[in-house]
Amino acid sequence: MTVEAINFKQKLALFNDQWSPRIIAQLNDYHFKLAKIEGEFVWHSHPETDEVFMVIEGEFEMQLPDKTLALKAGEMCVIPKGVQHRPVAARECAILLVEPSGTVNTGDAGGDLTAAHDDWV
Amino acid sequence: MTVEAINFKQKLALFNDQWSPRIIAQLNDYHFKLAKIEGEFVWHSHPETDEVFMVIEGEFEMQLPDKTLALKAGEMCVIPKGVQHRPVAARECAILLVEPSGTVNTGDAGGDLTAAHDDWV
Repeated sequence: MTVEAINFKQKLALFNDQWSPRIIAQLNDYHFKLAKIEGEFVWHSHPETDEVFMVIEGEFEMQLPDKTLALKAGEMCVIPKGVQHRPVAARECAILLVEPSGTVNTGDAGGDLTAAHDDWV
Repeated sequence: MTVEAINFKQKLALFNDQWSPRIIAQLNDYHFKLAKIEGEFVWHSHPETDEVFMVIEGEFEMQLPDKTLALKAGEMCVIPKGVQHRPVAARECAILLVEPSGTVNTGDAGGDLTAAHDDWV
């Protein structure tokens, strides 16, 4: 395995589609994925795993059953497994997801926004 | 488990000692740890796990057996398990480590720079 510097801005320049995470690194059996998000996602949960959301550029809101978190660049949150959540971004926002390889973006909800879970960039 | 926004700058303001990682989040059995580094660390490896280094503020060099990586804010790298490495920072730099809980900072090397692996901030 080659060890190299992974630059978020350089990787973000390589794709434009929203709600379509791209893998940029693997840590054991975990993937680090960049995604561009804008608008409202679907309510869903991941029954088998926690999930990290980190903001790289911009800001978004994480809607939870009992509250809404405002998250901006330089911040992250951990969604515990099984907890319903919905990311909403008023303007395009770049986020970094950390989760086990194979985790599907729409979790238990499925639907039209379900993206590939194994696209590298 | 309470879901909350975790702000890197706010967490970094809570401690000053260098080479002493502080846990800020848990993702399944993985820890996210902030650390302030300056000067030369010890050469070491982690025989049982990969390790992610992400730069939050500043820049540092990751020395590897066959090359040296320059890493700055907005960049990360993955050190594969078993690969010798040594971080070196000319000036203080803030990094985020992602690794399994219980991972010791000096890995197989030990020595005076070995820090607690379970300090939260």
